[in-house]
Amino acid sequence: MNFLGRLCFIITVSFSIAVRYEPNWPSIDSRPLPTWFDEAKFGIYIHWGIYSVPSYSPDYASEWFWWYWQGQKIPAYVDFMKRNYPPDFTYADFAPLFTAEFFDPNEWAEIFQAAGAEYVILTTKHHEGFTLWPSEYSFNWNSMAVGPKRDLVGTRWVIKSNTSLHFGLYHSLFEWFHPLYLKDKENNFTTTAFVDTKTMPELYEIINTYQPEIIESDGDWEANSSYWKSTEFLAWLYNDSPVKDTVVTNDRWGKDATCHHGGYLTCNDRYQPGHLLKRKWETGLTIDRKSWGFRRNANLSDYLTTQYLISTFAETVSLGGNFVINVGPTKEGVISPIAEERLREFGSWMKVNEEAIKGSKPWSTHKDAYTLDVWYV
Amino acid sequence: MNFLGRLCFIITVSFSIAVRYEPNWPSIDSRPLPTWFDEAKFGIYIHWGIYSVPSYSPDYASEWFWWYWQGQKIPAYVDFMKRNYPPDFTYADFAPLFTAEFFDPNEWAEIFQAAGAEYVILTTKHHEGFTLWPSEYSFNWNSMAVGPKRDLVGTRWVIKSNTSLHFGLYHSLFEWFHPLYLKDKENNFTTTAFVDTKTMPELYEIINTYQPEIIESDGDWEANSSYWKSTEFLAWLYNDSPVKDTVVTNDRWGKDATCHHGGYLTCNDRYQPGHLLKRKWETGLTIDRKSWGFRRNANLSDYLTTQYLISTFAETVSLGGNFVINVGPTKEGVISPIAEERLREFGSWMKVNEEAIKGSKPWSTHKDAYTLDVWYV
Amino acid sequence: MNFLGRLCFIITVSFSIAVRYEPNWPSIDSRPLPTWFDEAKFGIYIHWGIYSVPSYSPDYASEWFWWYWQGQKIPAYVDFMKRNYPPDFTYADFAPLFTAEFFDPNEWAEIFQAAGAEYVILTTKHHEGFTLWPSEYSFNWNSMAVGPKRDLVGTRWVIKSNTSLHFGLYHSLFEWFHPLYLKDKENNFTTTAFVDTKTMPELYEIINTYQPEIIESDGDWEANSSYWKSTEFLAWLYNDSPVKDTVVTNDRWGKDATCHHGGYLTCNDRYQPGHLLKRKWETGLTIDRKSWGFRRNANLSDYLTTQYLISTFAETVSLGGNFVINVGPTKEGVISPIAEERLREFGSWMKVNEEAIKGSKPWSTHKDAYTLDVWYV
Amino acid sequence: MNFLGRLCFIITVSFSIAVRYEPNWPSIDSRPLPTWFDEAKFGIYIHWGIYSVPSYSPDYASEWFWWYWQGQKIPAYVDFMKRNYPPDFTYADFAPLFTAEFFDPNEWAEIFQAAGAEYVILTTKHHEGFTLWPSEYSFNWNSMAVGPKRDLVGTRWVIKSNTSLHFGLYHSLFEWFHPLYLKDKENNFTTTAFVDTKTMPELYEIINTYQPEIIESDGDWEANSSYWKSTEFLAWLYNDSPVKDTVVTNDRWGKDATCHHGGYLTCNDRYQPGHLLKRKWETGLTIDRKSWGFRRNANLSDYLTTQYLISTFAETVSLGGNFVINVGPTKEGVISPIAEERLREFGSWMKVNEEAIKGSKPWSTHKDAYTLDVWYV
Repeated sequence: MNFLGRLCFIITVSFSIAVRYEPNWPSIDSRPLPTWFDEAKFGIYIHWGIYSVPSYSPDYASEWFWWYWQGQKIPAYVDFMKRNYPPDFTYADFAPLFTAEFFDPNEWAEIFQAAGAEYVILTTKHHEGFTLWPSEYSFNWNSMAVGPKRDLVGTRWVIKSNTSLHFGLYHSLFEWFHPLYLKDKENNFTTTAFVDTKTMPELYEIINTYQPEIIESDGDWEANSSYWKSTEFLAWLYNDSPVKDTVVTNDRWGKDATCHHGGYLTCNDRYQPGHLLKRKWETGLTIDRKSWGFRRNANLSDYLTTQYLISTFAETVSLGGNFVINVGPTKEGVISPIAEERLREFGSWMKVNEEAIKGSKPWSTHKDAYTLDVWYV
Repeated sequence: MNFLGRLCFIITVSFSIAVRYEPNWPSIDSRPLPTWFDEAKFGIYIHWGIYSVPSYSPDYASEWFWWYWQGQKIPAYVDFMKRNYPPDFTYADFAPLFTAEFFDPNEWAEIFQAAGAEYVILTTKHHEGFTLWPSEYSFNWNSMAVGPKRDLVGTRWVIKSNTSLHFGLYHSLFEWFHPLYLKDKENNFTTTAFVDTKTMPELYEIINTYQPEIIESDGDWEANSSYWKSTEFLAWLYNDSPVKDTVVTNDRWGKDATCHHGGYLTCNDRYQPGHLLKRKWETGLTIDRKSWGFRRNANLSDYLTTQYLISTFAETVSLGGNFVINVGPTKEGVISPIAEERLREFGSWMKVNEEAIKGSKPWSTHKDAYTLDVWYV
Repeated sequence: MNFLGRLCFIITVSFSIAVRYEPNWPSIDSRPLPTWFDEAKFGIYIHWGIYSVPSYSPDYASEWFWWYWQGQKIPAYVDFMKRNYPPDFTYADFAPLFTAEFFDPNEWAEIFQAAGAEYVILTTKHHEGFTLWPSEYSFNWNSMAVGPKRDLVGTRWVIKSNTSLHFGLYHSLFEWFHPLYLKDKENNFTTTAFVDTKTMPELYEIINTYQPEIIESDGDWEANSSYWKSTEFLAWLYNDSPVKDTVVTNDRWGKDATCHHGGYLTCNDRYQPGHLLKRKWETGLTIDRKSWGFRRNANLSDYLTTQYLISTFAETVSLGGNFVINVGPTKEGVISPIAEERLREFGSWMKVNEEAIKGSKPWSTHKDAYTLDVWYV
Repeated sequence: MNFLGRLCFIITVSFSIAVRYEPNWPSIDSRPLPTWFDEAKFGIYIHWGIYSVPSYSPDYASEWFWWYWQGQKIPAYVDFMKRNYPPDFTYADFAPLFTAEFFDPNEWAEIFQAAGAEYVILTTKHHEGFTLWPSEYSFNWNSMAVGPKRDLVGTRWVIKSNTSLHFGLYHSLFEWFHPLYLKDKENNFTTTAFVDTKTMPELYEIINTYQPEIIESDGDWEANSSYWKSTEFLAWLYNDSPVKDTVVTNDRWGKDATCHHGGYLTCNDRYQPGHLLKRKWETGLTIDRKSWGFRRNANLSDYLTTQYLISTFAETVSLGGNFVINVGPTKEGVISPIAEERLREFGSWMKVNEEAIKGSKPWSTHKDAYTLDVWYV
């Protein structure tokens, strides 16, 4: 390092010491996005949980199985359970069948890198509340106590030591059926027992324990960020957490925050703005077009083609977005060969084109008006 | 109601308004024991939980299975698991097998009354932490979500409406493997996360929901009552709870409290003082002499004889104690015929002798020095 | 051996060479009963099989579970299955749950000898067709391939080497649902595919392999002995089998044979003739009065008292009968303590009275006309 | 129909009445192959059975799981079982997990027709002995009694009524672990208990019951055709069976027959002669190159490319062979999307080229010596 390098280093350090974020949106929003994320452009999303056991949905998201079955009581789900399980089978009864016996994080990482991904985001806890790590706040409803008998989030260390993939964590704020959440909701979110003793302690726990580079929040939409105490959390995340300098987060921190505040924007699922945005944004596609979680009953026609994935990716990047492709592994821990094929084919294209993609900035003109499918990166 | 009746009523009310208990032992200890309990003399204890599934112990208490297996790693338990289960089987995996398909609370109550019992105490939560009611604080680790798929504590209403049995609840303060408890313990009980968010909320919950007439506390012995916030709880129980006038409780409220404070004394398991005590006390025997929980591998020689139960009962009553006989139902919800036989035989004796027993007071001289086995009631 | 000994030996041999039984009833019936059986007087019956898994019956024999459920479709059984199992659960699905993890043949034998029993009869195959030994004719529907993963009939050697108990085998000729049997039946028993390839090969197999001292045949009643080829079998058994000199058998060899031909008479279940018979006979009682197989839902009132067992035994012996008490072990391989208690109490009585019982002959006058409950032995 | 047509018809009929085949190879071999089979060129093979449950193999055929695990005791299989199952788990214990809940024969048939297939061959019984139909000779070891609880071979009628696909049945003569087979083998095949009471009755049963158009025999190689009584069977098949005029069969009827006698030749697995043969032959490829049964642990690289399938097909047809592509459905009854993709892509090529393929005859010159990959059809 020469003198100039040393100077820059000193400046950077001083700068990061100087700024402290306040627990309010203007302050939180003022934080510049760590540059690695915009440069990365492309990541992988992994939806894995108890829903990977029934692994069934006629049309919708299989990861919403519990809700469709026992929340909405949609006939297709109710019938599926009646046909195949004892009369009093509960969602919790699926847990011992989430076996993960073929799960090899290195194999997964190899596929993701072959696809050209720079980061990977794992669902640490979906709306079902089952934690893929041995949480202190989810006694006997976590992947160490039942099912895999492993700390699945802890595979972060395995993957990091073998690849350059950035490791991110998805976390659902709400849980459909958690009695403390339901009580807070009944109280119009004037009480916060669920936030104080369950969901926030868990979020702090995964950050301190696993030091992720992305926090993809979700499940916020029924309450405001004040209920979730999101700005307090983000202030801590940006000021004092072990990942304060590198971590990136999204916008799902309350129904007042989504699409407006936080880190990069995700707005709604499969978001496509169609024009340039001022803030960094991210969108995603699921290889099984109908579901984020694996569906045992998916047909070939349910899977997106590699070409479709590539063209959506190009459009996304041209408009300044990041792009994630979602895979839903099986309960055994396998990325199905059809998904592997899509990812490797995507990676072949990426290998040729990545110089033109990664680290690029959107052009002021982003679309060719004459040839509708051409986007300028 | 005539004038005198009205007057009495007013006096009673004034009296009960006047006394408020303070959250300290002298005040708590000053509360007179509701008279029904001393008059009752004899009750039934029920140990039922996830441990009723492995339902195994070579020699000791089967309800301690989890601890002996994974806490102490006693070879007999470790081997039992190796021989009969997949390598990564966990204690939580037993839960779906706790089926309770033959459980009929009315049948149980009929047997208990035939035995001459005046009250029954059910383990709502043992040291394993599994709640036999749908607790708000034990998501997916309770009898509604897994196993029986029923509110077993709620059978209190069924039993009450069919019998005159008083209904009591056993509750373990600590849980061997709860991570929040383990953390508090690691902090030498200077933190109280477990007490504040788990065990005390549950205790308040069962009292408000099920209005028991006895609270038999347990699992207190590793910490002082100040950690457990026991006097605060008891002050509430005696002042403001829905059962403040009738509820009876015991002494296991902290290692400083056992055998000294609270309600009736239990001191240690199978306690027999051998002489008169100043405070009301209670002791118990298990029909399977080696275990409170059911053991599938128990032999006839493990079961106490009816004669032994009766003579211990007589001794207990002569010294002012109450007596409980414990039964461990099977995971299917059956009181085994050998236990039923003991109880009905005990009841035959009781039928003849209950006038001389129930409502009696200990005689100043309680034992015949010449005939060692004779006790005066 | 002196000269006289040698002579006797020669004579014996000549004699046994001389007599050969023909495959017809007069010849078969002419065989004298080996004396040990009449002298023994008292034995134990064991009903154990796949039916020990559902182990349920409201009122009748639990070992008939399959037939009551899917043959007769009795509502109590149909409902039991609907309430507790997936919709397409079959009887074969019970097999993996027949675990026998606590089965210890020496413990059983000790209890049987304590009861004063001289012989024990095990159900090698009941009407369900499941064989408790690894039969060559029951591929993957036997106790070595599914369930216990043990040769349960082979415990004969364990028991023999530790006790003087004679070991007998119960064997059902028919199988409710065996397709070859059903076809023979449809053909009015003019075809014999089932007899030739299934049930008779099995019977020969258990005799050659386990060398039992009793064959208790059953399940014969829908067809004549000519269909079952019983006299051919018995001629072989008496002439050429490895147990030809010692084996004892009963009369259930065809609807024309029962109560008339074969070895000792059993006539119908729980037979009591009420007067002296010319032939040796045997009768039995089940400790659970309603069932031969274990019933998880049995109450104390379903169990016969020891006194009743003793008085029936006395009556039986006074009339020249042998007596068996039946126990139904649990699927885990446990003789329930209530059954153990009955057996040990029976044994206490036997210890005092066995000199007057074992080896006795019925008196010409067998009943006291004045005192109705007194029988002369 | 004109006069000539009528004449031909009469001649054909007379002819087929006139010829009766004798139970010897020269006579059996003299039967002309029904023409439909040669014209069809392309079919689908389905490997489905209990092996679809463990659905695991590191490298070899997953349908040989039982043999590799308990016959050869290959460490990878032994370890797999140790890691994931209780210590005494047997192969029979897999049966209840063969659930087939998503199986839809019409969906399968649609995919096969889209692939351009003219026939489909289902494994009715593999070497494990489990029958996919409710055989009279496989009590409680068949798909009606355990697992799917359906007659899977009976789906032949469903498929036929919706498509023009010819329906064929694969049948293994031997069974690795059948005790009667093992005894015959021990006797150097001088006894035939297995052939007489098990495997041949089953073969007659499926032909009479399901009237298949192909019988693909297998598992013959340890014994001669005289042991299997193959020529007797084939004489009956060609003379008197309900499918005598249309049925096609292969050559695996004894170690003396394979590659020499019977119907079309298959010789060894994945056979490619490389030159013209005098007799009709058939070869096949598995989409998962390593296995006929589904492997949950298969990666993308294990799957053959569509291009490879097409070029092998072209070569096969140019040399007079028929070609089958094998799919191994999951235990749930799903054809995995990667297999579906291969089949549909194959079908796209076929649609363009089928006029040049189906009904073609091999040219005398079958290969272009200059361009090695060009084959003349």
